[in-house]
Amino acid sequence: MSLILGLPKGSLQDATFNMMRKAGFNLQVGSRSYMPSVDDPDLQCRLIRAQEISRYVELGVLDAGITGYDWIYENNSDVHEVAELLYAKQGLRPVRWVVAVPNDSPIKSVKDLNGKRIATEAVGLTKRYLQKHGVTADVEFSWGATEVKAPELVDAIVELTETGSSLRANNLRIMDVVLESTTRLIANKKAWKDAAKRKKVEQIAMLLAGALAAETRVLLKMNVSGANLKAVTAKLPALHTPTVSALNDAGWHAVESVVEERVVREIVPLLREAGAEGIIELPLNKVVL
Amino acid sequence: MSLILGLPKGSLQDATFNMMRKAGFNLQVGSRSYMPSVDDPDLQCRLIRAQEISRYVELGVLDAGITGYDWIYENNSDVHEVAELLYAKQGLRPVRWVVAVPNDSPIKSVKDLNGKRIATEAVGLTKRYLQKHGVTADVEFSWGATEVKAPELVDAIVELTETGSSLRANNLRIMDVVLESTTRLIANKKAWKDAAKRKKVEQIAMLLAGALAAETRVLLKMNVSGANLKAVTAKLPALHTPTVSALNDAGWHAVESVVEERVVREIVPLLREAGAEGIIELPLNKVVL
Amino acid sequence: MSLILGLPKGSLQDATFNMMRKAGFNLQVGSRSYMPSVDDPDLQCRLIRAQEISRYVELGVLDAGITGYDWIYENNSDVHEVAELLYAKQGLRPVRWVVAVPNDSPIKSVKDLNGKRIATEAVGLTKRYLQKHGVTADVEFSWGATEVKAPELVDAIVELTETGSSLRANNLRIMDVVLESTTRLIANKKAWKDAAKRKKVEQIAMLLAGALAAETRVLLKMNVSGANLKAVTAKLPALHTPTVSALNDAGWHAVESVVEERVVREIVPLLREAGAEGIIELPLNKVVL
Amino acid sequence: MSLILGLPKGSLQDATFNMMRKAGFNLQVGSRSYMPSVDDPDLQCRLIRAQEISRYVELGVLDAGITGYDWIYENNSDVHEVAELLYAKQGLRPVRWVVAVPNDSPIKSVKDLNGKRIATEAVGLTKRYLQKHGVTADVEFSWGATEVKAPELVDAIVELTETGSSLRANNLRIMDVVLESTTRLIANKKAWKDAAKRKKVEQIAMLLAGALAAETRVLLKMNVSGANLKAVTAKLPALHTPTVSALNDAGWHAVESVVEERVVREIVPLLREAGAEGIIELPLNKVVL
Amino acid sequence: MSLILGLPKGSLQDATFNMMRKAGFNLQVGSRSYMPSVDDPDLQCRLIRAQEISRYVELGVLDAGITGYDWIYENNSDVHEVAELLYAKQGLRPVRWVVAVPNDSPIKSVKDLNGKRIATEAVGLTKRYLQKHGVTADVEFSWGATEVKAPELVDAIVELTETGSSLRANNLRIMDVVLESTTRLIANKKAWKDAAKRKKVEQIAMLLAGALAAETRVLLKMNVSGANLKAVTAKLPALHTPTVSALNDAGWHAVESVVEERVVREIVPLLREAGAEGIIELPLNKVVL
Amino acid sequence: MSLILGLPKGSLQDATFNMMRKAGFNLQVGSRSYMPSVDDPDLQCRLIRAQEISRYVELGVLDAGITGYDWIYENNSDVHEVAELLYAKQGLRPVRWVVAVPNDSPIKSVKDLNGKRIATEAVGLTKRYLQKHGVTADVEFSWGATEVKAPELVDAIVELTETGSSLRANNLRIMDVVLESTTRLIANKKAWKDAAKRKKVEQIAMLLAGALAAETRVLLKMNVSGANLKAVTAKLPALHTPTVSALNDAGWHAVESVVEERVVREIVPLLREAGAEGIIELPLNKVVL
Repeated sequence: MSLILGLPKGSLQDATFNMMRKAGFNLQVGSRSYMPSVDDPDLQCRLIRAQEISRYVELGVLDAGITGYDWIYENNSDVHEVAELLYAKQGLRPVRWVVAVPNDSPIKSVKDLNGKRIATEAVGLTKRYLQKHGVTADVEFSWGATEVKAPELVDAIVELTETGSSLRANNLRIMDVVLESTTRLIANKKAWKDAAKRKKVEQIAMLLAGALAAETRVLLKMNVSGANLKAVTAKLPALHTPTVSALNDAGWHAVESVVEERVVREIVPLLREAGAEGIIELPLNKVVL
Repeated sequence: MSLILGLPKGSLQDATFNMMRKAGFNLQVGSRSYMPSVDDPDLQCRLIRAQEISRYVELGVLDAGITGYDWIYENNSDVHEVAELLYAKQGLRPVRWVVAVPNDSPIKSVKDLNGKRIATEAVGLTKRYLQKHGVTADVEFSWGATEVKAPELVDAIVELTETGSSLRANNLRIMDVVLESTTRLIANKKAWKDAAKRKKVEQIAMLLAGALAAETRVLLKMNVSGANLKAVTAKLPALHTPTVSALNDAGWHAVESVVEERVVREIVPLLREAGAEGIIELPLNKVVL
Repeated sequence: MSLILGLPKGSLQDATFNMMRKAGFNLQVGSRSYMPSVDDPDLQCRLIRAQEISRYVELGVLDAGITGYDWIYENNSDVHEVAELLYAKQGLRPVRWVVAVPNDSPIKSVKDLNGKRIATEAVGLTKRYLQKHGVTADVEFSWGATEVKAPELVDAIVELTETGSSLRANNLRIMDVVLESTTRLIANKKAWKDAAKRKKVEQIAMLLAGALAAETRVLLKMNVSGANLKAVTAKLPALHTPTVSALNDAGWHAVESVVEERVVREIVPLLREAGAEGIIELPLNKVVL
Repeated sequence: MSLILGLPKGSLQDATFNMMRKAGFNLQVGSRSYMPSVDDPDLQCRLIRAQEISRYVELGVLDAGITGYDWIYENNSDVHEVAELLYAKQGLRPVRWVVAVPNDSPIKSVKDLNGKRIATEAVGLTKRYLQKHGVTADVEFSWGATEVKAPELVDAIVELTETGSSLRANNLRIMDVVLESTTRLIANKKAWKDAAKRKKVEQIAMLLAGALAAETRVLLKMNVSGANLKAVTAKLPALHTPTVSALNDAGWHAVESVVEERVVREIVPLLREAGAEGIIELPLNKVVL
Repeated sequence: MSLILGLPKGSLQDATFNMMRKAGFNLQVGSRSYMPSVDDPDLQCRLIRAQEISRYVELGVLDAGITGYDWIYENNSDVHEVAELLYAKQGLRPVRWVVAVPNDSPIKSVKDLNGKRIATEAVGLTKRYLQKHGVTADVEFSWGATEVKAPELVDAIVELTETGSSLRANNLRIMDVVLESTTRLIANKKAWKDAAKRKKVEQIAMLLAGALAAETRVLLKMNVSGANLKAVTAKLPALHTPTVSALNDAGWHAVESVVEERVVREIVPLLREAGAEGIIELPLNKVVL
Repeated sequence: MSLILGLPKGSLQDATFNMMRKAGFNLQVGSRSYMPSVDDPDLQCRLIRAQEISRYVELGVLDAGITGYDWIYENNSDVHEVAELLYAKQGLRPVRWVVAVPNDSPIKSVKDLNGKRIATEAVGLTKRYLQKHGVTADVEFSWGATEVKAPELVDAIVELTETGSSLRANNLRIMDVVLESTTRLIANKKAWKDAAKRKKVEQIAMLLAGALAAETRVLLKMNVSGANLKAVTAKLPALHTPTVSALNDAGWHAVESVVEERVVREIVPLLREAGAEGIIELPLNKVVL
């Protein structure tokens, strides 16, 4: 058995490769970048544009794939969604497809798009959006640099945006949000019914989830006297119960807790005040709870 | 009057900008790359994907444009073709769109494509080719890296090739040539009927042709005695009549001729044998014959 | 409340950003590099030349700043010094401002500088040094590359040096040390009296200190039998008491200790000899004792 | 005799080295960049910040130098100005020192600067400008990145600008122009009276002028019949008289003219119309008229 | 006492420096790369081609060195081999010296090399190999790019190969393996008898071994109830006994175990099934068991 | 007929490829760099280390080659030397092989090398040099970085030097010059007797010589009145007779002369003084006198 997994070439590539490596799958991109090598005999990877992965997963040429929800929707692909992957630390927040128009455009609502020309890389998504609102417009496929096309070449664009800065730099404003999208692990429906393939996909899902969870967490360890134990543990986030063990030094305890990294700078001063000593923070590669 | 000229962003960009500069139009690409600045008040430039230029020239949003014939054909655009631009020295030879299949594929002729899956960036061109041959196939738009898709994801591809090396590296062979393409200067049909705009387009065409002609030519100068004059000029290519003038040194003449650079290595030994002295070769910026 | 913190642009920048990140403050330098973004609503950062930070902290335009002691002294700024930051691991050792003269110069002591021409980027510091020694000289501001100016353009220079290699490469020798300098966290005196701002500065100081302490330390963990416990713990540096806990395996103990990284290679062989088994070393992000 | 010439390190450096090479002086910057080597035994070069060159030329440590007029003025240096060097093709247009203020600042004229704080790298120039207008303000030396300092750290800046784009990017507007500046060849006044040194400086000036003139000019050559000779030469710019000579082919003439490159695109169509044939354009290294 | 240690310049350099740093020896390569600085007063390093290290260790100019076994053998050096260093994680697997011939060569066995021309960088090794097989051939020293020389310039090559891909790319096949080689720590025989030097070499060997062991291992920690303890520990690899300690939460235990990183992705799902909770994985810098 | 020409890989490569292109042979180095493609059906190129070319030319595997004289001598190759190629403008001056010793070495003359250890990349050349002087020494082949080996590893080195700066940086002084070397075009002796191959080699030699001559020369053109003609032509270098022709403007003449670029800076002022007007300098591609 060998599972064929599509990985997204392009903007999601580095983050995905990083995550796969943290999950324990070492990928190497050689001269034939279509087939990155991976050190698992039960897994074969394919490097393909995010736009196309769901099409080939649906066809069954790929058993599974990692791609954006936007392109699954654009392609209207009939696939099994296994997991949503939030690459929080990788700088990959949810992205939005928006209708953007020039700052001084008279277009204020979706109805105003009637009879206009719209450029976009996601023609299917845009047409379904217009149809839903009963609007007819001329939707043109854009090969790139879409945001420079309004107002001279087209009236509006439907474009991906993270922070909106590229739109602002081109004097565009967001008129409406068409879709929010995150990264997904998907599987071919027939492959999902195959016990061996499903087990492999679930292993990948668990390890990816473990790696993603660890991205934002650290291990806090500290020493606490019995008198302060309650006060200290009260300061720890309720999410995960801290691990406490007795030390030889009578009345002292070791406390360990996995916490979100972002709270550390706030709670460390509080823990010190509450009597914690020798606090240390350790990086984590995986958290499988 | 200000002519709006579309220039191709991407693979043709550097060669086109170079040619425009040699023609005498200095372009600067600033932060908003959509509108490169140009030092001519009668000209405005727009930087757009080669794939889209002919569409916007046809619509009249652009007055003229430089793009590949392949994309004019793919878009089926109704525009006036002003000139063919052969960037011989820029490494931009005519390109070919070919049908390529795996080396060991049973597909031997266009008929064998019936019922197959084909990936391409040029869906229109591919469909017209199949239709002409009475073949029905599933043509999928490819977002890039098309040559890695066969045989696993598709049966054949229709792809651009210059030297064929990328195809060979992916174990593909060329089954048929769909289209040969070179770069063109095109104009909107209405703009071409406007006297001022047409004159501007023709000026650009003349200067581009002059710069392109100079790319592959050099000026040869030499001194020749009257006795050898006929023998020497007989060795010079017939294309352009050489310029001959008398020197103060009685009986001697100066001979000048514009020749293709690639023939210099052949004719210099012959000219020496025929009696030419002090042969020098000078670079050229423009040749307007 | 939002504290405005000046960070040093230039040679100290990378080390400072690294430390801030390890302290828990994620900084991003965008297109407007003057205002790096930081993921703490109570903090605003400004990226300014190290030379100027203390001036603007004194004026109160900045509440606090990180800069070199040398520039605080050069500017003679009236600010509150919160902490000295020793970036030991960052390759930023204390720097020295020295008087350097050509190897073969007759200038042997500060008195010999009388009537000479001196180039320096730190005119104030140099003038105060000369004044202290009752020496009069012509001090010229140098815009850079100061070390190449002697002997042709000037007689001596006052210049920053770490290893002295740049001076040696220019055939200069150090005649005297004017000032030793390290990095400091400073605060505006009025801001220091504001309870909220002071608390924020102290939080930053504590976290920076925690991150800096961790830079040079690691966690050692090992297993020790009761018989060897005393011998093993005797080998551990006295600085931090080791953490000892009982294991289920009767008579065995887990020993953990934070130690300076530089001593590990020396004490690991000793710990083995004393009976420690399964020694492991872990990286640390923060040590808040 | 060996002339010591200061060349500007930094933003003017590449353009200056290029020009010196085109003038015929081959410079090599080795490991000790202060003394670039030059292939002329009568010349020694020194690489120094543009800000400082005029000071050392005035002192006589350097015999001559190439630097910006702005820094000669800032330093108030008493030197002989030999020539103005306009590096037109090098992207080094005249630069301007301007007073810039935030877009929404109430400062509208120089009088409004009274009592304000101004940051600048050119303190002397700024103080003389304020003094001329009878204004008193706090002028602070800026170590760089001046344009980010207003409005938070200072009220206005005096800064160098070429295109104004850096100012606009920082939301600043130009309130007044303090000085326009171009590059100059200057000499020490005593050196200028020394016959040998003056001859050397004048040779450098003539060759630099020849190389600079060639930067923007080309040679046009064409063949013209006697009947069209007057019409064709009438289309050539009046600046330089064209060179006309008879060809062996009876009644035909060769016409050559040095013209500005930027007019070529206008006159080539006119020359063709007037009967010129075989028009070719050649690049030039030097033009000494 | 100061031990002089040769380190390999070139392909082994980065991996060796990395390992030395992980072992605790911080190396800095400055301008004189022959003598990298190291922060240990008892150690001096020299950066020399791997090909030459064993020669200078044998001569005693170096006390010890790190180099490939192939070059020790090529040089036939009489040195003490202290340890074999397997840089498993560094991408430096054992390398092989092979006889390679063109795919279509009639040479099938070592006997067929008789009377042929062979190019190699390892002339000594090749000659000893031929001699062992009683074969006479013309062995030529190759200065590099050996694999392009057959068949035009030579009949066969003896060349280093890791994956064989460079050979395949040049249409060569492996005819025989001459030698397998790994990295070694070697010492001069006299230095090995000097107590102080030997102690230093052994310290380096122990620390390098500790660092290398940690490269492929991680620390797994988890919480297990008494009921599941046996089942969980049964899933852990037998190599290292897990560390178990009682938690305050009655009946619960902390389990820690150092395991090979490559098995983690397999055993984590198994451990979960067996009842392990809160599994975490920590990176390791050293493992000295 | 197809001539096989060896070109030097490595330090001479760029200069050689440049020269070949200027001579009219366009070379492209593809993925298999051993066989660069060339646009001449009568020529095949091979890219090989300069050290080895003469060996393979002697063997007849190559018909001709471009390499350094030093390696022809080192290999003691029996080949026909066709031409010496002086790449003056390419930064490739004649190189020297020298004996270098530490600045403070007692070795003063070749006799002092008796019994010493010498490292070099040119073992043959070094042994022949020692033999000529009746000296016996231990000559070791050096794999590179030879200049760092003295004094610790060896007593002296024999090394290539251009400017001597690398030797000085390693505190070495030149004790003696062993050989001076320039680039050569060589041919196999049998190929030289084959009429077709010899004609091809001679064509290459003529065109390379023409391109090399143009590297350092320019064309000077000027207008001169009859009265000044003798004075002006007297200032032109005697090497090449100037070309003089009458202009239509009565009494005026056009004077053209090919001159060394390095003399332009000296003669332009003299030509102006002698009455030349409109002096222009043009670049040259080839000069075949």
